Amino acid sequence: MIDWFHWANLAGVAVCAISGTLMAYQKRMDGFGVIVLASATAIGGGTLRDMMLDVPVFWIADTDYLYTTLIAAFIPIIWLNVSPRFPFHYLLIADAFGLALFNVVGIEKALANDTGMAVAIAMGTITGVFGGLLRDVICREVPLVLNGELYAMTCIVGGVAYGIALQLGLATQWCGVLALATTVLFRLGAMRWHWQMPVFNREQ
Amino acid sequence: MIDWFHWANLAGVAVCAISGTLMAYQKRMDGFGVIVLASATAIGGGTLRDMMLDVPVFWIADTDYLYTTLIAAFIPIIWLNVSPRFPFHYLLIADAFGLALFNVVGIEKALANDTGMAVAIAMGTITGVFGGLLRDVICREVPLVLNGELYAMTCIVGGVAYGIALQLGLATQWCGVLALATTVLFRLGAMRWHWQMPVFNREQ
Amino acid sequence: MIDWFHWANLAGVAVCAISGTLMAYQKRMDGFGVIVLASATAIGGGTLRDMMLDVPVFWIADTDYLYTTLIAAFIPIIWLNVSPRFPFHYLLIADAFGLALFNVVGIEKALANDTGMAVAIAMGTITGVFGGLLRDVICREVPLVLNGELYAMTCIVGGVAYGIALQLGLATQWCGVLALATTVLFRLGAMRWHWQMPVFNREQ
Repeated sequence: MIDWFHWANLAGVAVCAISGTLMAYQKRMDGFGVIVLASATAIGGGTLRDMMLDVPVFWIADTDYLYTTLIAAFIPIIWLNVSPRFPFHYLLIADAFGLALFNVVGIEKALANDTGMAVAIAMGTITGVFGGLLRDVICREVPLVLNGELYAMTCIVGGVAYGIALQLGLATQWCGVLALATTVLFRLGAMRWHWQMPVFNREQ
Repeated sequence: MIDWFHWANLAGVAVCAISGTLMAYQKRMDGFGVIVLASATAIGGGTLRDMMLDVPVFWIADTDYLYTTLIAAFIPIIWLNVSPRFPFHYLLIADAFGLALFNVVGIEKALANDTGMAVAIAMGTITGVFGGLLRDVICREVPLVLNGELYAMTCIVGGVAYGIALQLGLATQWCGVLALATTVLFRLGAMRWHWQMPVFNREQ
Repeated sequence: MIDWFHWANLAGVAVCAISGTLMAYQKRMDGFGVIVLASATAIGGGTLRDMMLDVPVFWIADTDYLYTTLIAAFIPIIWLNVSPRFPFHYLLIADAFGLALFNVVGIEKALANDTGMAVAIAMGTITGVFGGLLRDVICREVPLVLNGELYAMTCIVGGVAYGIALQLGLATQWCGVLALATTVLFRLGAMRWHWQMPVFNREQ
């Protein structure tokens, strides 16, 4: 399980660093601040999770994550300096995978530290959305998590799928795969069909 | 003392979750982001306090707080879907109580972890104001703590009252009650008579 | 080394608290929120560093920092109430020293906790820039770290100088002095000659 953990987390970190750099490009930022923004997006959620669980912060304990963030942040910089045609439309799909990977890693790390399922679902959601929230707050954008198509809800749906699978007695790795698939599909569905979940009835 | 702690904290969390949801409603937000905002307002201050004191984060150690936050965040949602008349004017009084409860809980938790009185007062203030600061930053509002009627000062006055009472040899529970009353009355007074405390003399 | 640590950190905290108060004055803020902003600027970076390294937060462990922050925040308040002529142009030089002190303190504290050099450089950068980032986010300004003249880069250059000196076998205090000088000179140079480091080639 340690290995799956490690690689899923590395992949999630890389995808989020790339998406952070690309958004900095689209928002016409420049200079080394781009790397700062990419790093905040990539490791912000996991850092908050580890500080709250009081376990060693993942990128301090294992330097691989720091190097992965830096290398991944530079990929779109090099690409865009060679050609302005970056496959932006694939980015949204990659972003959905990044969100799902972070969600599952957050849930499993919480459960490995003996929290209940409700706290684990909250930790998965925080791991998934906090990096992007940080990115939006630093860039002074309206945070995606507040009005994006069920961004936070996606993580919770994936977390509930994990909890049900665990309750039914599935092995941990299958719970993880199921939660990953649920999160990705729910996110892609929400983007494709613009799912909404209004909580206030403002017509009154 | 543990019980008083627990119930005061639960009441503070519930009041702040309700006020977070209501402000999301007034700012015309919608969707599940409302719950994210209510949670950040309710548990943000205590989470930062516990991470800084290096004690288990309260809502991870005790799931009651998480469920209280969710249930309290849903109360105004259900209410507003039934009737648009929510007693908003009571909310400011409830908010003053939430601030005072968080202030006292922060002070007592810091003192229980052997900090000095100055650090304890700072911890009470952080517990009281950080959730609202987070809410305002996420919503891109001018933070209330920077220009609100003595918002941070209120917590410090309550903390100083606690410190004096402790110095005079009062029992801990009476220190807490005194600080709670001082904070609530000072806050209500500041709101009622628009107390100001200019630090710069700009007329020169 | 403990003493150097202590005094360098105190000096950095004082400079950042002064700069926080002055920026609050320039942005026409008032009231006790000015102190809140000065405190966030002065102790924000070190607090995040200590929470991530899982060591006692410096201003909780040693109350000197809290008193230094408060006293330093009041210096420009008293000064500006006596005379509106504050030597603002010296502030940028003081700010460069504050950044360099925080950078070195962050690097040494990380190395003292057995992190690798890459993590130590990241910790120095975080200690140096996070307080200012917090200040800008709370004030709803475009963060200086994202577009300022090589603000984050300055810390990394100083950190690399530290790493090279350590590799060459210099004593720790000389590594610190070298990193301090490098950071200050690089920052002053970047401000004087408006150094830029564009990472995107937007002419294409």
